[in-house]
Amino acid sequence: MAHAPASITKLFGTRLPIIQAGMVWVSGGKLAAAASNAGALGLIGAGSMKPDLLKHHIEKAKSLTSKTSVPFGINIPLLYSAAEEQIKVALDAGVRIFFTSAGSPKKLTPFLKSHGCTVVHVTSTPDLAKKCEDAGCDAVVAEGFEAGGHNGRDEITTLVLIPQVVDAVKIPVIAAGGIGDGRAIAACMALGAAGVQIGTRFAATVESSAHANFKQAITEAKPDSTFLMMKQLVPVRLLKNQFFDEIRAMEERGASKEEINAHLGKGRAKAGMLDGDLANGELEIGQICSAVRDVPTCAELVTRLEKEYAAAVNHLQPKL
Amino acid sequence: MAHAPASITKLFGTRLPIIQAGMVWVSGGKLAAAASNAGALGLIGAGSMKPDLLKHHIEKAKSLTSKTSVPFGINIPLLYSAAEEQIKVALDAGVRIFFTSAGSPKKLTPFLKSHGCTVVHVTSTPDLAKKCEDAGCDAVVAEGFEAGGHNGRDEITTLVLIPQVVDAVKIPVIAAGGIGDGRAIAACMALGAAGVQIGTRFAATVESSAHANFKQAITEAKPDSTFLMMKQLVPVRLLKNQFFDEIRAMEERGASKEEINAHLGKGRAKAGMLDGDLANGELEIGQICSAVRDVPTCAELVTRLEKEYAAAVNHLQPKL
Repeated sequence: MAHAPASITKLFGTRLPIIQAGMVWVSGGKLAAAASNAGALGLIGAGSMKPDLLKHHIEKAKSLTSKTSVPFGINIPLLYSAAEEQIKVALDAGVRIFFTSAGSPKKLTPFLKSHGCTVVHVTSTPDLAKKCEDAGCDAVVAEGFEAGGHNGRDEITTLVLIPQVVDAVKIPVIAAGGIGDGRAIAACMALGAAGVQIGTRFAATVESSAHANFKQAITEAKPDSTFLMMKQLVPVRLLKNQFFDEIRAMEERGASKEEINAHLGKGRAKAGMLDGDLANGELEIGQICSAVRDVPTCAELVTRLEKEYAAAVNHLQPKL
Repeated sequence: MAHAPASITKLFGTRLPIIQAGMVWVSGGKLAAAASNAGALGLIGAGSMKPDLLKHHIEKAKSLTSKTSVPFGINIPLLYSAAEEQIKVALDAGVRIFFTSAGSPKKLTPFLKSHGCTVVHVTSTPDLAKKCEDAGCDAVVAEGFEAGGHNGRDEITTLVLIPQVVDAVKIPVIAAGGIGDGRAIAACMALGAAGVQIGTRFAATVESSAHANFKQAITEAKPDSTFLMMKQLVPVRLLKNQFFDEIRAMEERGASKEEINAHLGKGRAKAGMLDGDLANGELEIGQICSAVRDVPTCAELVTRLEKEYAAAVNHLQPKL
């Protein structure tokens, strides 16, 4: 069912129903704190962090947000081997907002709820959204095909997914995938979402940990600059580059899963997104990158999103 | 730039900024007339018709709409060999609204404009939208990855595509792909579209020419029931069935373009969509089919869309 944005701002204690997505190599404590300080909910992307590094980023976010006690959370892909240890570290450090993904919502939701946490699971289908609700999640992120990074196998787009998830569950739905400006926020709210999760647009902010080369590549991207790849492994949306071309050539000649996995190797995402190797790195980014043309601060970005949202809603006529 | 819905209703002389998409084997004169009589712009899908049959459907639509003089148009894929003859037949029969697709907008737009026609071209990228504008089109349909039937190669979703097309051109933008209810219409308007083109939802109406078996299959579809296939030929979104599985198996074993084309053969779409062979037919349909649960009349559907749109806009808060 459709919920008002207040269901999201109340759930997280934020000023706005906007979540800055947890992104590997991009959203550390600095970005999460900046997004939270701007009125959104900042998320530390724990997927690329060993427990000690996660602890460091949590402490950084705490120090950067302490004056105003604004909330932040962490995103943990449950399939990562360190997931349970990451959760322990985060709980010990006082984190009480968890976004989980890439795994069953049944796995850790009851445990986190028993520790007084707010738990949100990421889903790419209405059926999984229902399972999240049954597992006790407080909300779901429904993420469409246009989203960056790892992606669902059914290729359901945000426009198609959101209304069906809204109709499938009673908990609030947070829309994700393809949201780069206030017009898209208004669109998702019209579909019945109570809030939005934004990744790519936050990846190209001053406070993002993305390498300057990667930020520049985002601002120069074209509508056809990303593609969903490596469907034999886990589908992932990437910015096209030399590495992308190599994988595509392998896929076209019918390379096996093992060959592709071997060429992928280890550390590709870090090399591209954090270290700025635009040729050999794996550059996870959403399709909306082609609408990202600058690198503002989080505060500037959030102010802009608010203005664009209000203008988009104001432009709508009450009747068709 | 964003235009008001009035730019669309004025352009076509309709009550509503809704276009019923021209669909092969589904949208004949009966559906176009019913959609137009309900206040939308009905389109006859000429792609599956020889010129004589097109003439028959135009006369049928004229006879079914004559009492109220409501407008209707035709959709012509320019790559079809009979396209120019179809246009001649339509012009002779008095049609003055043309939606063209699958070809260059430069090809026939000046000719049609010189005959006093309103011309709209279908595009799946902002760049092609600009070319449509330059060619003299009155509006563009911007159609996303979730749309049924033939599809762009860049897999840009409606949510990502619409704002970028709106920013790229000065003519009105009609959003298409993934629009099944009034919430999605409101969403597309929030993105800056002046109107919407709806296919799949109109395919499952009483007046659609789709076979009853196909209509029933649409109402039973699940979110993962469609997929974009045959990318070696022209990408096409199909409902999964035995034929789909056969093509997928061929693609997975690396079959050549020629092999796939041979298995596709002739008449697959007619067999499935018009004659109701759900096993061996090619069933072109949009991803939003999983939200289509009934077969209303066009009048019932349009009334519902209007109510849903108003409720969705009413639900939006003016500020984030």
